[in-house]
Amino acid sequence: MSERQWRPKPHSQRRRDTGRTMRHAFRRGEHRQSVDAPIVLYGWHTVTAALANPARRIRKLWATENALRRLAEEGIDTQSIPYEVVRPQALDARLTPDAVHQGLYAEADPLPSPEIEELSTSGIVLVLDQITDPHNVGAILRTAAAFAVGAIVTTARHSPEVTGVLAKSASGALEMVPIVTVQNLARALAALKERGFLVVGLDSEAADELAAMTLTAPLALVLGAEGKGLRHGTREVCDRLVRLDLPGSIKSLNVSNAAALALYIANRAITL
Amino acid sequence: MSERQWRPKPHSQRRRDTGRTMRHAFRRGEHRQSVDAPIVLYGWHTVTAALANPARRIRKLWATENALRRLAEEGIDTQSIPYEVVRPQALDARLTPDAVHQGLYAEADPLPSPEIEELSTSGIVLVLDQITDPHNVGAILRTAAAFAVGAIVTTARHSPEVTGVLAKSASGALEMVPIVTVQNLARALAALKERGFLVVGLDSEAADELAAMTLTAPLALVLGAEGKGLRHGTREVCDRLVRLDLPGSIKSLNVSNAAALALYIANRAITL
Repeated sequence: MSERQWRPKPHSQRRRDTGRTMRHAFRRGEHRQSVDAPIVLYGWHTVTAALANPARRIRKLWATENALRRLAEEGIDTQSIPYEVVRPQALDARLTPDAVHQGLYAEADPLPSPEIEELSTSGIVLVLDQITDPHNVGAILRTAAAFAVGAIVTTARHSPEVTGVLAKSASGALEMVPIVTVQNLARALAALKERGFLVVGLDSEAADELAAMTLTAPLALVLGAEGKGLRHGTREVCDRLVRLDLPGSIKSLNVSNAAALALYIANRAITL
Repeated sequence: MSERQWRPKPHSQRRRDTGRTMRHAFRRGEHRQSVDAPIVLYGWHTVTAALANPARRIRKLWATENALRRLAEEGIDTQSIPYEVVRPQALDARLTPDAVHQGLYAEADPLPSPEIEELSTSGIVLVLDQITDPHNVGAILRTAAAFAVGAIVTTARHSPEVTGVLAKSASGALEMVPIVTVQNLARALAALKERGFLVVGLDSEAADELAAMTLTAPLALVLGAEGKGLRHGTREVCDRLVRLDLPGSIKSLNVSNAAALALYIANRAITL
């Protein structure tokens, strides 16, 4: 990525450029999130969690009359946000047929991505090595919030549409778990190690079991994409490679299921 | 379902009726799996697991030259199966754009659905109360195979297309875990209880934790759909309702993640 693409622009230019930047990114199939591109949020849990998050700036909300009434009934304030009342069909038209918007659709600024150096050195962070499927990443975010994970470190950048699916699968957790997006995962893991993190990679063919290991906080659990697993450079920098103990005939799980088990085991080991 | 619809037909009539039965089912949007409707299988793990399963009758295989070469290299016999060599684009055209077929696509008979009375009374069965999302059901099947679950009991019937997605997400596990499809879940749970199963339902608002419970085999773990949870009639028949202990700010997980945790906890409790 050239430096030029990331040079900050004067604010006056940003707004005008947004549409062009997004169209360019799509045409080239890069799925790169522009500094100015909004993220899409839809669905009741996803949008209400965003409305409740003071750090999330919502650019505009599109809501059905029913959804607005329900927001008012639940005492959720939308007065400070530009919004438009629409028919459900108008939201259907913005999304894929299988997307369930429940009358709420918003465009928002991405949350700021913290630096590795800013992460708390207590508890667990999850590191995702090229996991891109938005349903899986969303489910992982949700489970990470359920286990009070400190942050998710990832190399993946998603297009606004893909972020919508991810946010919906996360069911509000996108507002709760900071996401650290890095260019170079091996370097990020090295930075975590410097800060005292034990870095443990999951590998279905490793000799040792996660549950049999002595685990200490702060802990970084590293998961690879299905099929590919951890990349060579990622494995190299891990302190330990471990597998989950699976008694049945299949030895590798859906990655979000693997993340859930690893978090459960690690959380118990650290707090016991 | 009337008896007439399920009366076995002479073999000579079956073939002719297949297309009509399927078209009818789709037109009426019933997603009911006809006795004669094939299920769709695609993807390397899914199709090779089906080829390796002596109980699975594959009606026809469509494969690319590359995939056929790879099958031969791995010593997988396709001689007894009617097959057709096709270009990758011909398989693309049969599937949705996000489906990864890896050069293999098959139509097969559904596996026979065992009766509750035929299930082994050792170990764990998973019971799914109106969980329909094929990605979730597929991930659950895969994790069930990883934990050597005896069977999955479900009310859901899927169309052939949906079964393709489910089978792909299950990554071969559709061949490994028997699926018991029932009309009435409460009655099926009562039948499990009669056979000595402890029936434990997962409910994020239950007072007790699964991990704190004394669990015994045979065990039936019951999971409800996201958002809706267990239906009233299902809850009524459970011996116990329990929750997963989640220390973070989100108290309910993606259903396949919840199934993975419940299976891990229950499997440990029973084997310890």
